[in-house]
Amino acid sequence: MWVQALKRRLLGRPIPTTLEKHERLGRVTGLAVFASDALSSSAYATEEIFLILVLAGTAALHTSVPISLGITVLLAIVVTSYRQTILAYPSAGGAYIVSRENLGTYPSLVAGAALLTDYVLTVSVSVAAGIAAVTSAVPALYPYRVELCLAGVALITVANLRGVRESGRVFAVPTYAFVGSYVLMIGWGIVGWLRGAYVPGPPPASAPGTEELTLFLALRAFASGCVALTGIEAVSNGVPAFRPPESRNARHVVVALGVILVGLFVGITVLANVFQLVPLEQETINSQLARRVFGSDSLLYYVVQAMTMLILVLAANTSFADFPRLSSFMARDRFMPRQFANRGDRLAFSNGIIILAVLSALLLVVFRGDTHALIPLYAVGVFVSFTLSQTGMVRFWSRERGPRWRMRAVLNAVGALATGIVTLIIATTKFTHGAWIVILLIPLIVLTLMSIHRHYANVADQLSVEGAEPDQPPVPHMVLVLIGDVHRGVLLALRYARALSSNARAVYVDTDPERTRRFEDRWGKWGGGMPLVVLRSPYRSVVGALLEYLNQLQAHAPDHFVTIILPEFVPARWWQHLLHNQTALLIKGALLFRRGVVVVDVPYHLDR
Amino acid sequence: MWVQALKRRLLGRPIPTTLEKHERLGRVTGLAVFASDALSSSAYATEEIFLILVLAGTAALHTSVPISLGITVLLAIVVTSYRQTILAYPSAGGAYIVSRENLGTYPSLVAGAALLTDYVLTVSVSVAAGIAAVTSAVPALYPYRVELCLAGVALITVANLRGVRESGRVFAVPTYAFVGSYVLMIGWGIVGWLRGAYVPGPPPASAPGTEELTLFLALRAFASGCVALTGIEAVSNGVPAFRPPESRNARHVVVALGVILVGLFVGITVLANVFQLVPLEQETINSQLARRVFGSDSLLYYVVQAMTMLILVLAANTSFADFPRLSSFMARDRFMPRQFANRGDRLAFSNGIIILAVLSALLLVVFRGDTHALIPLYAVGVFVSFTLSQTGMVRFWSRERGPRWRMRAVLNAVGALATGIVTLIIATTKFTHGAWIVILLIPLIVLTLMSIHRHYANVADQLSVEGAEPDQPPVPHMVLVLIGDVHRGVLLALRYARALSSNARAVYVDTDPERTRRFEDRWGKWGGGMPLVVLRSPYRSVVGALLEYLNQLQAHAPDHFVTIILPEFVPARWWQHLLHNQTALLIKGALLFRRGVVVVDVPYHLDR
Repeated sequence: MWVQALKRRLLGRPIPTTLEKHERLGRVTGLAVFASDALSSSAYATEEIFLILVLAGTAALHTSVPISLGITVLLAIVVTSYRQTILAYPSAGGAYIVSRENLGTYPSLVAGAALLTDYVLTVSVSVAAGIAAVTSAVPALYPYRVELCLAGVALITVANLRGVRESGRVFAVPTYAFVGSYVLMIGWGIVGWLRGAYVPGPPPASAPGTEELTLFLALRAFASGCVALTGIEAVSNGVPAFRPPESRNARHVVVALGVILVGLFVGITVLANVFQLVPLEQETINSQLARRVFGSDSLLYYVVQAMTMLILVLAANTSFADFPRLSSFMARDRFMPRQFANRGDRLAFSNGIIILAVLSALLLVVFRGDTHALIPLYAVGVFVSFTLSQTGMVRFWSRERGPRWRMRAVLNAVGALATGIVTLIIATTKFTHGAWIVILLIPLIVLTLMSIHRHYANVADQLSVEGAEPDQPPVPHMVLVLIGDVHRGVLLALRYARALSSNARAVYVDTDPERTRRFEDRWGKWGGGMPLVVLRSPYRSVVGALLEYLNQLQAHAPDHFVTIILPEFVPARWWQHLLHNQTALLIKGALLFRRGVVVVDVPYHLDR
Repeated sequence: MWVQALKRRLLGRPIPTTLEKHERLGRVTGLAVFASDALSSSAYATEEIFLILVLAGTAALHTSVPISLGITVLLAIVVTSYRQTILAYPSAGGAYIVSRENLGTYPSLVAGAALLTDYVLTVSVSVAAGIAAVTSAVPALYPYRVELCLAGVALITVANLRGVRESGRVFAVPTYAFVGSYVLMIGWGIVGWLRGAYVPGPPPASAPGTEELTLFLALRAFASGCVALTGIEAVSNGVPAFRPPESRNARHVVVALGVILVGLFVGITVLANVFQLVPLEQETINSQLARRVFGSDSLLYYVVQAMTMLILVLAANTSFADFPRLSSFMARDRFMPRQFANRGDRLAFSNGIIILAVLSALLLVVFRGDTHALIPLYAVGVFVSFTLSQTGMVRFWSRERGPRWRMRAVLNAVGALATGIVTLIIATTKFTHGAWIVILLIPLIVLTLMSIHRHYANVADQLSVEGAEPDQPPVPHMVLVLIGDVHRGVLLALRYARALSSNARAVYVDTDPERTRRFEDRWGKWGGGMPLVVLRSPYRSVVGALLEYLNQLQAHAPDHFVTIILPEFVPARWWQHLLHNQTALLIKGALLFRRGVVVVDVPYHLDR
């Protein structure tokens, strides 16, 4: 079928389970896959700080430098904390697992819900910011940003449905090209600045703001800047995706990530201050910066924008690796629908990938692809999971007590405290700007997860063979053949019915006395002695008459199964189905959930 | 279920088949039901003539009077012709039946296709013109005309799904009120004119046209005016809907219809000339006329507009009686899908009604509810069927030779000749304005009808029991139970399998060696000695492995039926289905059209 063919073309051929081991990442490709989320936040973190500070006037923008240094300290704490997590949980130490093992079910569900929300937002925010890089360079595309965002999501989705190894290959080049181009831009900019090569432009009109530069506003700017940290935890979630030694490789990657991230983020913030940039609606800070450093229409400017777009659209890929993986963990624990634990043809968790794509596309449409509108929803979930994860690690060390456990516990405690305070800052300063949505959503998700769990427990309980008799007798049953005519398909169904039971009965619904008389004549010849039951139906409804008859039968023999055989001829071509009554379908629909009734189609295939 | 409840509320309770006879129409209600189509064309026929003539300038509009007299002559011929058809075919003498009996299959299919097209257009044109009457009176509604059209179609559809008797009741009052209000308007207008009561307005600016008043243009205007005749044939199509004596009642009705129609059509045309009306885009000629006669904001003006709207929206009802009836005839002759021959709960042919509603609504959307754009498509079908029907009658009389047969044959021959010529005029003058669509469509419909017929003949041939053995042995078969686990649902399925066959086998697909080992352990205790087949599946596809096994089985025993039993537990609530794998559905889908395979779901019902 063409659907199958299209699927193959898009996703490649199926991969056998035995090849699973080989689908692993080395340090270089691993950094590429897991770095994109963390690094890409440098594309918008500075701008988010600027967008808050500018409320207090352009003069307040200088405050961004101390704020970015504060964020650097926070980042150092978080990276240190996560190195320990990777050490303690080489087999996958996401916030969900760490909380579950050390804090119990409820905290782990909160962490899980926070992470799931966060992954969806990562996709939306990254894609929105990536498209903003494109529309900054090509303003003519600005009106089409939502459509471009959706195309981006579709692209990543297909790449991920193909499987994780090929993802690594696809993402390595752009990640390193991004780092290279940004290092070049920042270095070039700083060198030029120190040499005094840039002619200072006219001093920007020092616009007054609408608010005072209060501590609250500064904290709000800090909270916005904390999006820089998002994605740093991705590595600890994905340790098993590395080649052995997994844990060692992962720890190297997380530190490298932190260092590169600080370099980019602080570098951009400082240069944005040097050039006295001011946020604009249709052009990003980074785009303005690249124009100033390389010149407006230079090739290098376009290279930077292209790399920014690529890293951001591909950053969403981190979530496409982690959302399905976390869903599969939670599905195995019976907190999410079990379909999330199924691997697809290509060994990827297809259902998780598809759900993630749908949800993030929805957010992009609702928020019209606007990064700034999405940011307040974003960081809450990340920091809730940071806090729970670090807290869990404190419990871990004080229980396990390996070498140097006290030092390790203190390091994680510092991490927990710092991220906990930041969580409160974000929730408070961003509450009315959208954070309330996530603060409301997380408990709702937790409740849903718990009711799913309860359902699975109920089902397991009801299906348990505990206390059942091992050798049970065949179920007592009766066989009915529902017929409306005598033709070769009916003769086949009668032969089939005789094979199932020597007591089969034929059932005919009388909707027209004249036809019934003709039918009975033919039945005498072709019925082969099978008893015939004729049901009256004044309202011409075959289903109604059948249901009434079943009620009678089941009232008399409640322990019997009734097998209803439907002779059905199958036309040679699909459109020919339209030319035949769909009575069989109606009957199957009506009996779908009826106890003790089994409906059996006996197909008679036509050749033309 | 709420769907059922809504259906009952909208359509009323089912009517038993035995009540069918009583759903008949007397002369008064019969005139109302069948008249609306024919009479309502007076709402737009004059305007359509004006719209063509005005191309040659306002001075050319006077030509409308002789044209309307020509149409009157044509109408008299057609009515005389149809009186004879009703006489000869008291049991339903539509063009389809008359052509089939007298001219053969192909002409009857052409007539049928023409009529079906025509019925759809009747609905679209009538509803569009009805809404034009509303927007003439209330210009503020003009932008919503398409939506209003669709609401009108929906209203008539529901009324008709309720059944024909109630339709008669619904339509009698507006039909007679329409005739009354128009007779009043025309009479009042003529009396006032003769008494010189109207102050002549400023003579209209005698606008020059863009074309010459050629014979071709006059013929085009005549062709447009011929829409006045549409609907006159409805009575002969619906003779059996009358109370006995059906034929006599129907003949009275068709003559009464002709007389009223001429009165209204000629009256409007003459008065429109008297008042020197000119077609406007947003107001109909009839609305302008009513304003001049009764005064712009008088109550009577609004009464005329309301009645025009009602008769037109309800005129569509003629098609809602005739389209489903003709479809059911053609379905019984196996030229249309047999579903069209099924009566619904309320004895109406529901499928025909619904298809008609959908097609006409589609036309209204495509042509933006514009009467004038639809008219060129309209009359072709009507006149093709007129011509075929009258031609058929000539053959009828010369074959049957009853009393005065020569005279009757001549009358019908005159009808056939006149309508044949008009068909050519319409096809020629309207070809480029839209008639080509119908001229192309009719042969396509005929081809489709023929291929449907061929399909039914093929099926009947293949299903025929001719040559079959009456006493055939039970079909040889084997029973497989597909299981993935051991639970109470599986135990039930095993008991059911044992009831069907003492040689049933269990089939298990191995997707994970560890799980398979655990399963085999449990099987030892619970399998009750049933043989177990374990299938390997390196690609984790249960369906794939099963299909391969079936290929093997069927290669060894091609004459055997394979019954595959799927144990399925049925959750207590619908949303819980989402939490379980839909493997059973996948398997059923994959085996749907496979020869010699029967798939049986054995449901195990959960309580919570």
